[in-house]
Amino acid sequence: MSAFLPAIILVNPQMGENIGAAARAMLNFGLTDLRLVTPRDGWPNQRAVDMSSGALDMMPPVQIFETLVGALADRHYVYGTTARTRDMNKPVSEIRDAAVQFFARARNKQNIGFVFGPERTGLSNEGLALCHEIITVPTNPDFSSINLAQSVLLVAYEWFRVQGHEVNIGNKEAFAPHEKLEELFVRLEEELERGRFFRADDLRPTMMRNIRTMFMRAQFSEQEVSTFHGIISALIGNKTRKIKQTGGLVRR
Amino acid sequence: MSAFLPAIILVNPQMGENIGAAARAMLNFGLTDLRLVTPRDGWPNQRAVDMSSGALDMMPPVQIFETLVGALADRHYVYGTTARTRDMNKPVSEIRDAAVQFFARARNKQNIGFVFGPERTGLSNEGLALCHEIITVPTNPDFSSINLAQSVLLVAYEWFRVQGHEVNIGNKEAFAPHEKLEELFVRLEEELERGRFFRADDLRPTMMRNIRTMFMRAQFSEQEVSTFHGIISALIGNKTRKIKQTGGLVRR
Repeated sequence: MSAFLPAIILVNPQMGENIGAAARAMLNFGLTDLRLVTPRDGWPNQRAVDMSSGALDMMPPVQIFETLVGALADRHYVYGTTARTRDMNKPVSEIRDAAVQFFARARNKQNIGFVFGPERTGLSNEGLALCHEIITVPTNPDFSSINLAQSVLLVAYEWFRVQGHEVNIGNKEAFAPHEKLEELFVRLEEELERGRFFRADDLRPTMMRNIRTMFMRAQFSEQEVSTFHGIISALIGNKTRKIKQTGGLVRR
Repeated sequence: MSAFLPAIILVNPQMGENIGAAARAMLNFGLTDLRLVTPRDGWPNQRAVDMSSGALDMMPPVQIFETLVGALADRHYVYGTTARTRDMNKPVSEIRDAAVQFFARARNKQNIGFVFGPERTGLSNEGLALCHEIITVPTNPDFSSINLAQSVLLVAYEWFRVQGHEVNIGNKEAFAPHEKLEELFVRLEEELERGRFFRADDLRPTMMRNIRTMFMRAQFSEQEVSTFHGIISALIGNKTRKIKQTGGLVRR
Protein backbone atom coordinates (compact mmCIF):
# COMPACT_ATOMS: atom_id res chain seq x y z
CA MET A 1 0.00 0.00 0.00
CA SER A 2 1.12 3.57 -0.53
CA ALA A 3 3.17 5.10 2.22
CA PHE A 4 1.55 7.84 4.25
CA LEU A 5 -1.98 6.98 3.25
CA PRO A 6 -4.14 6.92 6.37
CA ALA A 7 -5.19 3.55 7.76
CA ILE A 8 -8.77 2.84 8.71
CA ILE A 9 -8.95 0.59 11.76
CA LEU A 10 -12.21 -1.08 12.73
CA VAL A 11 -12.20 -2.48 16.24
CA ASN A 12 -14.34 -5.59 16.73
CA PRO A 13 -16.75 -4.87 13.87
CA GLN A 14 -19.93 -6.95 14.06
CA MET A 15 -21.50 -6.89 10.60
CA GLY A 16 -19.69 -8.04 7.48
CA GLU A 17 -21.96 -5.70 5.51
CA ASN A 18 -20.55 -2.73 7.35
CA ILE A 19 -16.97 -3.82 6.70
CA GLY A 20 -17.71 -4.18 2.99
CA ALA A 21 -19.51 -0.85 2.82
CA ALA A 22 -16.63 0.77 4.67
CA ALA A 23 -14.14 -0.66 2.16
CA ARG A 24 -16.19 0.68 -0.73
CA ALA A 25 -16.38 4.11 0.90
CA MET A 26 -12.62 4.08 1.51
CA LEU A 27 -11.77 3.26 -2.08
CA ASN A 28 -14.25 5.87 -3.32
CA PHE A 29 -11.90 8.36 -1.73
CA GLY A 30 -8.60 6.71 -2.46
CA LEU A 31 -7.94 4.94 0.83
CA THR A 32 -6.80 1.33 0.70
CA ASP A 33 -5.32 0.45 4.09
CA LEU A 34 -8.06 -1.34 6.03
CA ARG A 35 -7.26 -3.08 9.32
CA LEU A 36 -9.61 -5.11 11.46
CA VAL A 37 -9.15 -5.91 15.13
CA THR A 38 -10.93 -9.18 16.03
CA PRO A 39 -13.89 -8.96 13.63
CA ARG A 40 -16.82 -10.83 15.20
CA ASP A 41 -17.39 -13.20 12.27
CA GLY A 42 -13.75 -13.80 11.38
CA TRP A 43 -12.10 -13.12 8.07
CA PRO A 44 -12.59 -13.40 5.13
CA ASN A 45 -16.28 -12.61 5.18
CA GLN A 46 -18.46 -13.11 2.11
CA ARG A 47 -20.98 -10.48 3.14
CA ALA A 48 -18.20 -7.96 3.32
CA VAL A 49 -17.01 -8.93 -0.15
CA ASP A 50 -20.53 -8.63 -1.55
CA MET A 51 -21.16 -5.21 -0.03
CA SER A 52 -17.81 -3.83 -1.12
CA SER A 53 -18.84 -3.80 -4.81
CA GLY A 54 -15.39 -4.97 -5.82
CA ALA A 55 -13.43 -2.65 -3.56
CA LEU A 56 -11.99 -5.44 -1.42
CA ASP A 57 -10.67 -7.15 -4.56
CA MET A 58 -8.99 -3.96 -5.73
CA MET A 59 -7.40 -3.10 -2.40
CA PRO A 60 -4.35 -4.73 -0.79
CA PRO A 61 -5.39 -7.54 1.57
CA VAL A 62 -7.14 -6.46 4.75
CA GLN A 63 -4.87 -6.87 7.77
CA ILE A 64 -6.23 -8.64 10.82
CA PHE A 65 -4.97 -7.93 14.34
CA GLU A 66 -5.55 -9.41 17.75
CA THR A 67 -5.25 -6.08 19.50
CA LEU A 68 -5.69 -2.39 18.70
CA VAL A 69 -2.17 -1.79 19.96
CA GLY A 70 -0.91 -4.16 17.28
CA ALA A 71 -2.96 -2.47 14.57
CA LEU A 72 -1.51 0.91 15.49
CA ALA A 73 2.12 -0.17 15.64
CA ASP A 74 3.34 1.74 12.58
CA ARG A 75 1.12 4.81 13.08
CA HIS A 76 2.46 8.18 14.18
CA TYR A 77 -0.77 9.96 14.91
CA VAL A 78 -4.11 8.35 15.68
CA TYR A 79 -7.57 9.85 15.56
CA GLY A 80 -10.35 8.19 17.55
CA THR A 81 -13.96 8.54 16.49
CA THR A 82 -16.83 8.77 18.89
CA ALA A 83 -20.27 10.30 19.00
CA ARG A 84 -19.76 11.11 22.65
CA THR A 85 -17.11 13.56 23.67
CA ARG A 86 -16.32 11.89 26.90
CA ASP A 87 -14.51 13.50 29.74
CA MET A 88 -11.04 12.67 28.46
CA ASN A 89 -7.99 14.84 28.58
CA LYS A 90 -7.51 14.94 24.81
CA PRO A 91 -8.13 17.40 22.06
CA VAL A 92 -11.59 17.06 20.51
CA SER A 93 -12.13 18.42 17.00
CA GLU A 94 -14.93 18.42 14.53
CA ILE A 95 -13.85 16.21 11.69
CA ARG A 96 -13.77 19.03 9.18
CA ASP A 97 -11.59 21.17 11.36
CA ALA A 98 -9.25 18.24 11.93
CA ALA A 99 -9.19 17.44 8.21
CA VAL A 100 -6.88 20.32 7.43
CA GLN A 101 -4.20 18.48 9.39
CA PHE A 102 -4.66 15.11 7.73
CA PHE A 103 -2.84 15.90 4.56
CA ALA A 104 -0.21 18.04 6.28
CA ARG A 105 0.65 15.14 8.54
CA ALA A 106 1.00 12.80 5.58
CA ARG A 107 3.26 15.32 3.88
CA ASN A 108 5.32 15.41 7.05
CA LYS A 109 5.67 11.64 6.72
CA GLN A 110 3.45 10.88 9.62
CA ASN A 111 1.46 7.71 9.28
CA ILE A 112 -2.00 8.50 10.51
CA GLY A 113 -4.82 6.19 11.54
CA PHE A 114 -8.53 6.50 12.18
CA VAL A 115 -10.00 4.16 14.76
CA PHE A 116 -13.67 3.17 14.82
CA GLY A 117 -15.34 1.12 17.56
CA PRO A 118 -17.95 -1.63 17.20
CA GLU A 119 -21.43 -0.79 15.88
CA ARG A 120 -23.39 -0.85 19.09
CA THR A 121 -21.06 0.51 21.68
CA GLY A 122 -18.48 2.61 19.88
CA LEU A 123 -14.88 2.82 21.03
CA SER A 124 -14.19 1.79 24.60
CA ASN A 125 -12.36 4.13 26.94
CA GLU A 126 -9.34 1.84 26.58
CA GLY A 127 -9.48 2.26 22.82
CA LEU A 128 -9.86 6.02 23.04
CA ALA A 129 -6.90 6.12 25.38
CA LEU A 130 -4.68 4.92 22.53
CA CYS A 131 -5.67 7.85 20.33
CA HIS A 132 -3.98 11.21 20.17
CA GLU A 133 -7.06 13.16 19.29
CA ILE A 134 -10.81 12.67 19.17
CA ILE A 135 -12.75 13.63 16.07
CA THR A 136 -16.49 14.10 16.06
CA VAL A 137 -19.20 14.78 13.50
CA PRO A 138 -21.88 17.33 14.33
CA THR A 139 -25.27 15.58 14.14
CA ASN A 140 -28.92 15.88 15.03
CA PRO A 141 -28.80 15.59 18.84
CA ASP A 142 -32.03 13.56 18.80
CA PHE A 143 -30.61 10.91 16.47
CA SER A 144 -26.87 11.01 16.59
CA SER A 145 -25.77 7.42 16.07
CA ILE A 146 -24.15 7.16 12.65
CA ASN A 147 -23.74 3.81 10.93
CA LEU A 148 -20.16 2.50 11.05
CA ALA A 149 -19.61 2.53 7.29
CA GLN A 150 -21.16 5.98 7.08
CA SER A 151 -18.65 7.24 9.68
CA VAL A 152 -15.81 5.76 7.65
CA LEU A 153 -17.22 7.47 4.58
CA LEU A 154 -17.21 10.89 6.23
CA VAL A 155 -13.60 10.51 7.33
CA ALA A 156 -12.50 9.30 3.90
CA TYR A 157 -14.48 12.08 2.23
CA GLU A 158 -12.97 14.79 4.40
CA TRP A 159 -9.52 13.34 3.89
CA PHE A 160 -9.91 13.25 0.13
CA ARG A 161 -11.52 16.67 0.09
CA VAL A 162 -8.53 18.44 1.63
CA GLN A 163 -6.10 17.23 -1.00
CA GLY A 164 -5.78 20.26 -3.25
CA HIS A 165 -9.23 19.86 -4.74
CA GLU A 166 -10.07 20.94 -8.21
CA VAL A 167 -13.08 23.01 -8.97
CA ASN A 168 -15.37 22.03 -11.80
CA ILE A 169 -17.18 24.96 -13.31
CA GLY A 170 -19.05 22.77 -15.74
CA ASN A 171 -18.67 21.88 -19.34
CA LYS A 172 -20.84 24.67 -20.52
CA GLU A 173 -20.91 25.72 -24.12
CA ALA A 174 -19.85 29.26 -24.85
CA PHE A 175 -22.54 31.87 -24.36
CA ALA A 176 -24.12 33.37 -27.43
CA PRO A 177 -22.62 36.74 -28.29
CA HIS A 178 -24.79 39.66 -27.44
CA GLU A 179 -25.71 40.46 -31.01
CA LYS A 180 -27.35 37.06 -31.40
CA LEU A 181 -29.46 37.68 -28.34
CA GLU A 182 -30.35 41.11 -29.60
CA GLU A 183 -31.59 39.70 -32.91
CA LEU A 184 -33.65 37.17 -31.00
CA PHE A 185 -35.28 39.77 -28.80
CA VAL A 186 -35.98 42.13 -31.70
CA ARG A 187 -37.67 39.34 -33.60
CA LEU A 188 -39.61 38.21 -30.55
CA GLU A 189 -40.82 41.75 -29.96
CA GLU A 190 -42.01 42.05 -33.58
CA GLU A 191 -43.90 38.81 -33.38
CA LEU A 192 -45.43 39.69 -30.04
CA GLU A 193 -46.55 43.01 -31.46
CA ARG A 194 -48.17 41.16 -34.34
CA GLY A 195 -49.87 38.87 -31.80
CA ARG A 196 -51.15 41.91 -29.84
CA PHE A 197 -49.22 40.87 -26.76
CA PHE A 198 -48.67 44.47 -25.65
CA ARG A 199 -52.03 45.63 -24.47
CA ALA A 200 -51.00 49.27 -24.51
CA ASP A 201 -48.12 51.01 -26.21
CA ASP A 202 -46.86 52.61 -23.02
CA LEU A 203 -46.56 49.21 -21.34
CA ARG A 204 -44.44 47.83 -24.13
CA PRO A 205 -40.97 49.00 -23.02
CA THR A 206 -41.44 47.66 -19.50
CA MET A 207 -42.86 44.37 -20.70
CA MET A 208 -40.00 43.87 -23.14
CA ARG A 209 -37.49 44.70 -20.45
CA ASN A 210 -39.00 42.06 -18.20
CA ILE A 211 -38.96 39.51 -21.00
CA ARG A 212 -35.33 40.24 -21.80
CA THR A 213 -34.45 39.90 -18.16
CA MET A 214 -36.11 36.56 -17.70
CA PHE A 215 -34.52 35.02 -20.77
CA MET A 216 -31.11 36.59 -20.33
CA ARG A 217 -30.77 34.88 -17.00
CA ALA A 218 -30.65 31.57 -18.87
CA GLN A 219 -27.41 32.58 -20.59
CA PHE A 220 -28.23 30.83 -23.84
CA SER A 221 -25.59 29.33 -26.05
CA GLU A 222 -25.69 30.11 -29.75
CA GLN A 223 -27.30 26.74 -30.40
CA GLU A 224 -29.98 27.55 -27.89
CA VAL A 225 -30.66 30.90 -29.50
CA SER A 226 -31.28 29.00 -32.74
CA THR A 227 -33.59 26.64 -30.90
CA PHE A 228 -35.53 29.61 -29.56
CA HIS A 229 -35.86 30.99 -33.10
CA GLY A 230 -37.17 27.58 -34.12
CA ILE A 231 -39.73 27.65 -31.32
CA ILE A 232 -40.99 31.05 -32.43
CA SER A 233 -41.19 29.89 -36.04
CA ALA A 234 -43.08 26.77 -35.06
CA LEU A 235 -45.58 28.70 -32.95
CA ILE A 236 -46.31 31.29 -35.62
CA GLY A 237 -45.53 29.15 -38.65
CA ASN A 238 -48.48 26.85 -38.38
CA LYS A 239 -50.62 29.94 -38.72
CA THR A 240 -48.97 30.89 -41.97
CA ARG A 241 -49.62 27.51 -43.46
CA LYS A 242 -53.21 27.30 -42.34
CA ILE A 243 -54.00 30.78 -43.49
CA LYS A 244 -52.53 29.96 -46.85
CA GLN A 245 -54.70 26.89 -47.02
CA THR A 246 -57.81 28.94 -46.42
CA GLY A 247 -56.73 31.42 -49.03
CA GLY A 248 -56.30 34.18 -46.49
CA LEU A 249 -53.54 36.54 -45.58
CA VAL A 250 -49.94 35.63 -46.20
CA ARG A 251 -47.52 36.87 -43.57
CA ARG A 252 -45.00 39.47 -44.81
CA MET B 1 -42.80 18.03 8.05
CA SER B 2 -41.09 21.34 8.57
CA ALA B 3 -41.41 23.87 5.82
CA PHE B 4 -38.30 24.57 3.80
CA LEU B 5 -36.45 21.44 4.84
CA PRO B 6 -34.98 19.83 1.76
CA ALA B 7 -36.66 16.72 0.38
CA ILE B 8 -34.64 13.65 -0.53
CA ILE B 9 -36.11 11.95 -3.58
CA LEU B 10 -35.00 8.44 -4.51
CA VAL B 11 -35.99 7.44 -8.02
CA ASN B 12 -36.71 3.75 -8.48
CA PRO B 13 -34.52 2.56 -5.59
CA GLN B 14 -33.79 -1.16 -5.77
CA MET B 15 -32.65 -2.24 -2.29
CA GLY B 16 -34.75 -1.71 0.81
CA GLU B 17 -31.51 -1.70 2.79
CA ASN B 18 -30.35 1.38 0.95
CA ILE B 19 -33.64 3.17 1.57
CA GLY B 20 -33.38 2.42 5.28
CA ALA B 21 -29.74 3.45 5.45
CA ALA B 22 -30.60 6.64 3.58
CA ALA B 23 -33.37 7.41 6.07
CA ARG B 24 -30.98 6.91 8.98
CA ALA B 25 -28.40 9.16 7.35
CA MET B 26 -31.06 11.82 6.73
CA LEU B 27 -32.23 11.87 10.33
CA ASN B 28 -28.63 11.94 11.57
CA PHE B 29 -28.50 15.35 9.96
CA GLY B 30 -32.00 16.54 10.67
CA LEU B 31 -33.72 15.77 7.36
CA THR B 32 -37.11 14.06 7.46
CA ASP B 33 -38.77 14.49 4.05
CA LEU B 34 -38.12 11.26 2.14
CA ARG B 35 -39.91 10.61 -1.15
CA LEU B 36 -39.71 7.49 -3.27
CA VAL B 37 -40.59 7.21 -6.94
CA THR B 38 -41.67 3.67 -7.82
CA PRO B 39 -39.45 1.74 -5.38
CA ARG B 40 -38.72 -1.66 -6.92
CA ASP B 41 -40.05 -3.73 -4.01
CA GLY B 42 -43.02 -1.51 -3.17
CA TRP B 43 -43.66 0.16 0.15
CA PRO B 44 -43.57 -0.39 3.11
CA ASN B 45 -40.41 -2.46 3.08
CA GLN B 46 -39.27 -4.36 6.16
CA ARG B 47 -35.61 -4.33 5.15
CA ALA B 48 -35.73 -0.56 4.95
CA VAL B 49 -37.27 -0.39 8.42
CA ASP B 50 -34.60 -2.69 9.83
CA MET B 51 -31.72 -0.76 8.30
CA SER B 52 -33.07 2.62 9.38
CA SER B 53 -32.33 1.90 13.07
CA GLY B 54 -35.59 3.54 14.06
CA ALA B 55 -35.28 6.57 11.79
CA LEU B 56 -38.29 5.63 9.65
CA ASP B 57 -40.45 5.40 12.78
CA MET B 58 -39.36 8.85 13.94
CA MET B 59 -39.86 10.56 10.57
CA PRO B 60 -43.14 11.58 8.95
CA PRO B 61 -44.42 8.87 6.59
CA VAL B 62 -42.40 8.36 3.43
CA GLN B 63 -44.28 9.67 0.39
CA ILE B 64 -44.58 7.45 -2.67
CA PHE B 65 -44.96 8.80 -6.20
CA GLU B 66 -45.59 7.32 -9.61
CA THR B 67 -43.41 9.86 -11.38
CA LEU B 68 -40.50 12.12 -10.59
CA VAL B 69 -42.54 15.03 -11.90
CA GLY B 70 -45.12 14.30 -9.20
CA ALA B 71 -42.49 14.07 -6.49
CA LEU B 72 -41.09 17.46 -7.45
CA ALA B 73 -44.41 19.30 -7.70
CA ASP B 74 -43.89 21.55 -4.66
CA ARG B 75 -40.13 22.06 -5.09
CA HIS B 76 -38.65 25.35 -6.28
CA TYR B 77 -35.08 24.31 -6.88
CA VAL B 78 -33.91 20.81 -7.59
CA TYR B 79 -30.42 19.36 -7.41
CA GLY B 80 -29.66 16.22 -9.35
CA THR B 81 -26.91 13.88 -8.29
CA THR B 82 -24.74 12.00 -10.72
CA ALA B 83 -21.25 10.60 -10.80
CA ARG B 84 -20.98 11.53 -14.46
CA THR B 85 -21.00 15.14 -15.43
CA ARG B 86 -22.64 14.56 -18.70
CA ASP B 87 -22.66 16.99 -21.50
CA MET B 88 -25.71 18.84 -20.24
CA ASN B 89 -26.09 22.55 -20.33
CA LYS B 90 -26.64 22.91 -16.60
CA PRO B 91 -24.49 24.21 -13.81
CA VAL B 92 -22.37 21.49 -12.25
CA SER B 93 -21.10 22.09 -8.73
CA GLU B 94 -19.16 20.12 -6.24
CA ILE B 95 -21.52 19.39 -3.42
CA ARG B 96 -19.57 21.44 -0.93
CA ASP B 97 -19.53 24.48 -3.15
CA ALA B 98 -23.26 24.12 -3.76
CA ALA B 99 -23.90 23.61 -0.07
CA VAL B 100 -23.43 27.26 0.76
CA GLN B 101 -26.62 27.93 -1.20
CA PHE B 102 -28.73 25.20 0.43
CA PHE B 103 -29.51 27.06 3.59
CA ALA B 104 -29.82 30.42 1.90
CA ARG B 105 -32.43 28.99 -0.43
CA ALA B 106 -34.41 27.65 2.50
CA ARG B 107 -34.28 31.06 4.15
CA ASN B 108 -35.60 32.57 0.94
CA LYS B 109 -38.53 30.16 1.24
CA GLN B 110 -37.44 28.00 -1.62
CA ASN B 111 -38.33 24.35 -1.25
CA ILE B 112 -35.33 22.41 -2.44
CA GLY B 113 -35.01 18.80 -3.43
CA PHE B 114 -32.17 16.37 -4.00
CA VAL B 115 -32.80 13.66 -6.57
CA PHE B 116 -30.94 10.35 -6.59
CA GLY B 117 -31.23 7.71 -9.32
CA PRO B 118 -31.37 3.94 -8.95
CA GLU B 119 -28.36 2.07 -7.60
CA ARG B 120 -27.00 0.59 -10.77
CA THR B 121 -27.67 3.19 -13.39
CA GLY B 122 -27.98 6.52 -11.62
CA LEU B 123 -30.33 9.21 -12.81
CA SER B 124 -31.51 8.99 -16.40
CA ASN B 125 -31.12 11.91 -18.75
CA GLU B 126 -34.87 12.48 -18.42
CA GLY B 127 -34.48 12.69 -14.65
CA LEU B 128 -31.53 15.02 -14.89
CA ALA B 129 -33.50 17.23 -17.27
CA LEU B 130 -35.94 17.96 -14.43
CA CYS B 131 -33.15 19.31 -12.23
CA HIS B 132 -31.86 22.87 -12.11
CA GLU B 133 -28.34 22.00 -11.11
CA ILE B 134 -26.09 18.98 -10.93
CA ILE B 135 -24.08 18.29 -7.82
CA THR B 136 -21.15 15.97 -7.78
CA VAL B 137 -18.79 14.55 -5.22
CA PRO B 138 -15.10 14.42 -6.06
CA THR B 139 -13.99 10.80 -5.88
CA ASN B 140 -11.23 8.40 -6.77
CA PRO B 141 -11.53 8.27 -10.58
CA ASP B 142 -10.71 4.55 -10.54
CA PHE B 143 -13.60 3.71 -8.21
CA SER B 144 -16.13 6.46 -8.32
CA SER B 145 -19.46 4.71 -7.79
CA ILE B 146 -20.77 5.72 -4.37
CA ASN B 147 -23.44 3.66 -2.64
CA LEU B 148 -26.89 5.30 -2.76
CA ALA B 149 -27.26 5.73 1.00
CA GLN B 150 -23.71 7.04 1.21
CA SER B 151 -24.55 9.69 -1.38
CA VAL B 152 -27.60 10.70 0.62
CA LEU B 153 -25.40 10.90 3.71
CA LEU B 154 -22.97 13.29 2.05
CA VAL B 155 -25.78 15.59 0.91
CA ALA B 156 -27.40 15.55 4.35
CA TYR B 157 -24.04 16.09 6.04
CA GLU B 158 -23.16 19.06 3.87
CA TRP B 159 -26.62 20.50 4.33
CA PHE B 160 -26.41 20.20 8.11
CA ARG B 161 -22.88 21.53 8.13
CA VAL B 162 -23.72 24.84 6.42
CA GLN B 163 -26.65 25.81 8.61
CA GLY B 164 -25.76 29.07 10.16
CA HIS B 165 -23.21 29.95 7.51
CA GLU B 166 -25.26 32.40 5.53
CA VAL B 167 -24.64 33.56 2.02
CA ASN B 168 -26.51 35.96 -0.14
CA ILE B 169 -27.97 34.39 -3.24
CA GLY B 170 -29.66 37.58 -4.27
CA ASN B 171 -33.01 39.07 -3.49
CA LYS B 172 -34.77 37.19 -6.19
CA GLU B 173 -38.49 36.78 -6.33
CA ALA B 174 -39.62 33.32 -5.33
CA PHE B 175 -39.09 30.73 -8.04
CA ALA B 176 -42.12 29.12 -9.58
CA PRO B 177 -42.80 25.72 -8.06
CA HIS B 178 -41.97 22.80 -10.24
CA GLU B 179 -45.58 22.02 -11.18
CA LYS B 180 -45.98 25.45 -12.81
CA LEU B 181 -42.92 24.87 -14.93
CA GLU B 182 -44.19 21.44 -15.81
CA GLU B 183 -47.50 22.87 -17.04
CA LEU B 184 -45.60 25.39 -19.11
CA PHE B 185 -43.38 22.78 -20.74
CA VAL B 186 -46.29 20.45 -21.43
CA ARG B 187 -48.19 23.25 -23.11
CA LEU B 188 -45.16 24.37 -25.07
CA GLU B 189 -44.56 20.84 -26.27
CA GLU B 190 -48.18 20.55 -27.46
CA GLU B 191 -47.99 23.79 -29.34
CA LEU B 192 -44.64 22.89 -30.88
CA GLU B 193 -46.09 19.58 -31.97
CA ARG B 194 -48.96 21.43 -33.60
CA GLY B 195 -46.43 23.69 -35.28
CA ARG B 196 -44.47 20.70 -36.61
CA PHE B 197 -41.39 21.73 -34.69
CA PHE B 198 -40.29 18.13 -34.15
CA ARG B 199 -39.08 16.99 -37.52
CA ALA B 200 -39.12 13.34 -36.48
CA ASP B 201 -40.82 11.60 -33.59
CA ASP B 202 -37.62 10.02 -32.34
CA LEU B 203 -35.95 13.41 -32.04
CA ARG B 204 -38.74 14.78 -29.91
CA PRO B 205 -37.58 13.58 -26.43
CA THR B 206 -34.08 14.94 -26.94
CA MET B 207 -35.31 18.20 -28.36
CA MET B 208 -37.73 18.71 -25.49
CA ARG B 209 -35.00 17.86 -22.98
CA ASN B 210 -32.78 20.51 -24.48
CA ILE B 211 -35.60 23.03 -24.44
CA ARG B 212 -36.38 22.29 -20.81
CA THR B 213 -32.74 22.62 -19.92
CA MET B 214 -32.28 25.97 -21.60
CA PHE B 215 -35.35 27.50 -19.98
CA MET B 216 -34.89 25.91 -16.57
CA ARG B 217 -31.58 27.67 -16.25
CA ALA B 218 -33.48 30.94 -16.15
CA GLN B 219 -35.20 29.97 -12.89
CA PHE B 220 -38.45 31.71 -13.71
CA SER B 221 -40.64 33.23 -11.05
CA GLU B 222 -44.34 32.45 -11.13
CA GLN B 223 -44.99 35.82 -12.76
CA GLU B 224 -42.46 35.01 -15.45
CA VAL B 225 -44.08 31.66 -16.13
CA SER B 226 -47.32 33.57 -16.71
CA THR B 227 -45.49 35.92 -19.04
CA PHE B 228 -44.16 32.96 -20.98
CA HIS B 229 -47.69 31.59 -21.31
CA GLY B 230 -48.71 35.01 -22.60
CA ILE B 231 -45.92 34.92 -25.17
CA ILE B 232 -47.03 31.52 -26.42
CA SER B 233 -50.65 32.69 -26.60
CA ALA B 234 -49.66 35.81 -28.48
CA LEU B 235 -47.58 33.87 -30.99
CA ILE B 236 -50.26 31.28 -31.68
CA GLY B 237 -53.30 33.37 -30.79
CA ASN B 238 -53.14 35.76 -33.65
CA LYS B 239 -53.58 32.73 -35.83
CA THR B 240 -56.76 31.72 -34.01
CA ARG B 241 -58.29 35.13 -34.43
CA LYS B 242 -57.37 35.46 -38.09
CA ILE B 243 -58.56 32.00 -38.87
CA LYS B 244 -61.84 32.71 -37.18
CA GLN B 245 -62.15 35.87 -39.23
CA THR B 246 -61.75 33.96 -42.44
CA GLY B 247 -64.31 31.42 -41.32
CA GLY B 248 -61.72 28.67 -41.20
CA LEU B 249 -60.61 26.19 -38.62
CA VAL B 250 -60.97 26.91 -34.95
CA ARG B 251 -58.10 25.66 -32.81
CA ARG B 252 -58.99 22.81 -30.39
